[in-house]
Parts: sequence; structure tokens; C-alpha cells
Amino acid sequence: MSERVIFGIDLGGTTAKLGLFSENGVLLEKWQIPTDIRDKGKNILRDLAASVRVRMSTGRFTAQDVIGIGLGVPGEVLQDKTVEPCVNLNGWGGFYVAGAFSRMCGIPVKAVNDANAAALGELWKGSAQGARNMYFVAIGTGLGAALVIGGQIVEGFHGAGGEIGHMIIKPEEKREFGRGKRGRLEQYASASGIACEAKQLLETADEPSLLRQYGEVTAKHIFMHAQQGDALARRLTEKFASELGRALSIISCVCDPEVIVLGGGVSAAGDTLLSAVKKAYKLYAPVATEGTVIRLAALGNDAGIFGAARLMMK
Amino acid sequence: MSERVIFGIDLGGTTAKLGLFSENGVLLEKWQIPTDIRDKGKNILRDLAASVRVRMSTGRFTAQDVIGIGLGVPGEVLQDKTVEPCVNLNGWGGFYVAGAFSRMCGIPVKAVNDANAAALGELWKGSAQGARNMYFVAIGTGLGAALVIGGQIVEGFHGAGGEIGHMIIKPEEKREFGRGKRGRLEQYASASGIACEAKQLLETADEPSLLRQYGEVTAKHIFMHAQQGDALARRLTEKFASELGRALSIISCVCDPEVIVLGGGVSAAGDTLLSAVKKAYKLYAPVATEGTVIRLAALGNDAGIFGAARLMMK
Repeated sequence: MSERVIFGIDLGGTTAKLGLFSENGVLLEKWQIPTDIRDKGKNILRDLAASVRVRMSTGRFTAQDVIGIGLGVPGEVLQDKTVEPCVNLNGWGGFYVAGAFSRMCGIPVKAVNDANAAALGELWKGSAQGARNMYFVAIGTGLGAALVIGGQIVEGFHGAGGEIGHMIIKPEEKREFGRGKRGRLEQYASASGIACEAKQLLETADEPSLLRQYGEVTAKHIFMHAQQGDALARRLTEKFASELGRALSIISCVCDPEVIVLGGGVSAAGDTLLSAVKKAYKLYAPVATEGTVIRLAALGNDAGIFGAARLMMK
Repeated sequence: MSERVIFGIDLGGTTAKLGLFSENGVLLEKWQIPTDIRDKGKNILRDLAASVRVRMSTGRFTAQDVIGIGLGVPGEVLQDKTVEPCVNLNGWGGFYVAGAFSRMCGIPVKAVNDANAAALGELWKGSAQGARNMYFVAIGTGLGAALVIGGQIVEGFHGAGGEIGHMIIKPEEKREFGRGKRGRLEQYASASGIACEAKQLLETADEPSLLRQYGEVTAKHIFMHAQQGDALARRLTEKFASELGRALSIISCVCDPEVIVLGGGVSAAGDTLLSAVKKAYKLYAPVATEGTVIRLAALGNDAGIFGAARLMMK
């Protein structure tokens, strides 16, 4: 092989996305494999290594042809490189993941928090190209986030730079939600949060809604029916957007980024959601930051593999 | 003169503090002059220049002996070096302050936002010595703040890195407060905010309180009587601390600083307030950041002149 390659991997709770990149950062191919979280995820690295090896063999790459593997993980990567146990992976983690994976593959590996990886991807080839200061919010089952200052990820002192899902925006909240504290942003502005709100609303009100056709209502259903005009779905979406918009205005008050990029699965809800979030943002933001650019992630679900691969460049 | 000197100035709405520093950063002398905000503050720079000139003449310094003047101003310093019109100075500003002051004195001048100056001071010689990532909150009549990442002030894209007083923490708030949006942090956790809360509470309740002896209750009265056991003053203080503590926990969720330093006049309320704020912080912060260090500013009212002088070093 004349050109060397890089693997970018985005390890999620359901699937792992893998990408093969040229050494100058062109995505050559992408694919995914299921994540096996049984037994505290003991097969995760073995399965990933097997998939990398298969791709190397079909491409006739030797270990020398591979510059390295960037690996995004759904947990914080601490300063000593330990990955904190990942809730979405049944507690997998608590060890030096990059080191273990590197030994398994015989290839250099760097691990990075998945929200940080997605932020790096958007900064490099997505919605925040050219920005120096950026805040990335990944809206999925839960919330993740990453702060970029001067083109660099700010890890945060406790590796908790992206804990925005935990900001208590409604201290008066009485209802429990998951294992975290009550009234945190995640309770309102995440896929699991809006699904939970929908369930409660459908149970307590007898207003007709197309959402009643589903055994288990998901965020996807809600955003889809909101777009199609279902009044109850629309109210849920507006509340979601309002809380998220207010949280983004708070982020602007704290660190005044140039661009805020919304990624993660929920960002697929598209322009309806985006414009509602922007409207709420403007309502709450101080005048000086009313003009902050808010954009959807351009790379969608690929942001993570791009950012992970970026880690191994230069 | 064998050693050269630096002036550090902290321009406030009531007085300007001035400090004379040796070139290696030792405070040699400090004094203050009143700030004349009449006529949109047209005498401000003239008065400051006169005070600098007097000190130069008593110390027999020539302009060559002065490395420069660092000037903290109560408004944002934009990227083109214009100082935004300052509310506390009757709208003074809107021009290149450092340039004008430098021409007036014949000495190099750098201008900096006053909260940023105080943060730099605390980082250099105060409570945050040695920290790389720090969040500084100045609690006075209003709220100011500064974010330090990697030892550098993060100005924010719109020069609004310190707008935390404007974060909407109670969107349901019905009462107006000053000219900003309703429900912003400043409405609860600032000297003017708590004074306003006290006034309303004293008017609507007939509970006895030593606060009733004052024509106009100030934050100082409230914190003093809370410390001495007045029940109403104590409730006010606890509410203040609770809102501030929650806001600090939100800051940790957004950017996870190593140290949070509380400065400004209100920080003189001391340990009673600090321990109440810490308690509230812990109640709301995500587990990962429960251990964030929260300290009172060590330099008190001198933080601004230290930080301003620091600007002119090296």
C-alpha cells in the first residue's frame, strides 16, 4: 500500500460505527457492528478488533499501513487515560481502554469521549468548520456535550466538561427521572425525557392524539407527529425546545461560544425542532449573545467516526 | 530610578482604585479617587491621568520609568478594543479607551474588563494560584464573571463570557427586576437582588426583624443580621446562597472548572455565606463535580488592580 489509513470508531450502546479513512482524512468506507453489552461488555473490544482485522485483510493492510485507531467511548476519559464505567455499556470501563485495544490490534489507539469526538468531527468537517470556540450538544437517549476553546477540546477538571444533562433547571421538580437528580435538563430535553413526558401526559389527559397508537411512544414518534400537526405532540415538542433553548442561553451566559451545534439522534428531527429551539434561545439569551449561531450537526451520525479519526492525524 | 514601575487601575462606578507596582509585581502603594460619572463620565480619564501624574511626580518617575498602565473597566472590551458603554458609569464608553488614556498619559495602556482583571489577579496572587481552569464570579450590585482556561481569560465570542447574571434560572418569575429579563440570576444572587427581595418580604410579612430599623435595607445589613441570628435575614441569605449555589453547579456542568472563586463586595460576607453556597452547590452538582473547590477571593477589593497590573507584565 502506498497510502496509509486510519480507523475511526464510535462505540455506542446499541451499535458501534466504524470508518476507514485515508491518511489525509477522506472517509473511504463505513459500516457498523452490534455492541454486545452482556457480561459487562467483556466482548466489546474483541468484536471491534475482529471487525478491524477483517477490514484490514480485505484491504490487504498490514499493521504498518494503519496510522492508528481513534476510539470514541460513551463515558469520560480521565487524565490517567482510564475510561470511567459507561452506564450505556452496562458498566463496561474502569480500565485503560486505549492501551488494551492497542495491544489487541497491534496498532496505536487513542480513546476519546464520544461527545468530544463528535464535536471534533463537526469542527473539522461539519457545521462548525472554521470556528474557534464552539459548544456541541449531543441529544440522544441522554445528553452529552463538549466545549471547544481555541480549536481545542476543554476536557474539564473532573473530565466532566459535558455534564449539561445534569444541570438542575427545575429545582422544584417532584417527579423522579432515572438515577440522576430531579429537575435536571435530561428530564426534559433528551429522547428518554420527552418519551417519559409523553407517557405521563397520555395517561393523565384524554385528549385525542395519534401518539396513542404506539405501545411505547418514542422521541421519533413525537417529533414526526408534531411535524404532521398533532396538537399533543406539538406541545411536547415545544416544551422540549423551550427547555433546551433556555439551557443553550445559559451556556452562552457561562462561556459565550461562537457556534452551538446540536447533534445526536434527536437532531435528525430537523428544522422544525431547530427553529423552535432558536426561538426559545432568543427569548432567554442576553442581548449580547442573541446572535449566537445555532446549527444542526452536518455529519449526523458520522460525526463521531470523523472526530475519532481526526485524533490520529498529524 | 533603577527599577521600573507599573500602574494597575480598577475603575468602578463610585471610586477608582489605583495601585503602584514594582516591575516584578510587588504592590508598593494603593489609593483611590472618586469616579465622577456626571456628563456621561467625561472627566473620568482626565481625573485618572491627574492622579497618575501626581504619583509619578512624588516618586520622581518619568514616563520612561513606567512600563505601562493596566486599566480595568466595568464593561466589555470588544475585539476592536472599543469599551462598550458602561451602565455603571452613566453610559461612558463606546470608544478606544486604552488609546485615549495612553495619549493622555504618554504611557502604554491596556484596558480589560474588570471581572477579567479580578480573575487574573486571583489567578496570579490570590485564591486560584496554580489553577489552570478557573471560574471567577464577582458578586456586587450586579454580577460579573470570568472564565479562565489553560491560564488564559476566555473572552467569549461576543465579549460576553461573563454574562452569568443574565442566565434565566426562573423562567416562571412574574416580578420585574431592573432593565434585564425576568428571572435572571441577578434578580436573586446580587446585592441589588437580595435588597429588593428583602424590601418585598418586609412589606408583605409582619414578622419581626432587625432589618426593619433601616430606611433602605442593603445586602450588608442582611448578611450581618443573618450572622447574628435574625430569622428573616437568615432566610433571605439562605435563598441567596441556594440560587447562587445552583448557578455554580450549572457552571460546573457547562465547563467543569478546577476552582470557583467568589469575589466582589458581597464576598466580604465571608464564611457564613460561603458555607451556605457550598451546601447548595453540593445539593445540585452532578456527582463528578461535587468536589469542585469553591473559595472566597483572597485579594478582596485589590484583585482588580493586581490583575490590571499583571496585564502589563512580561
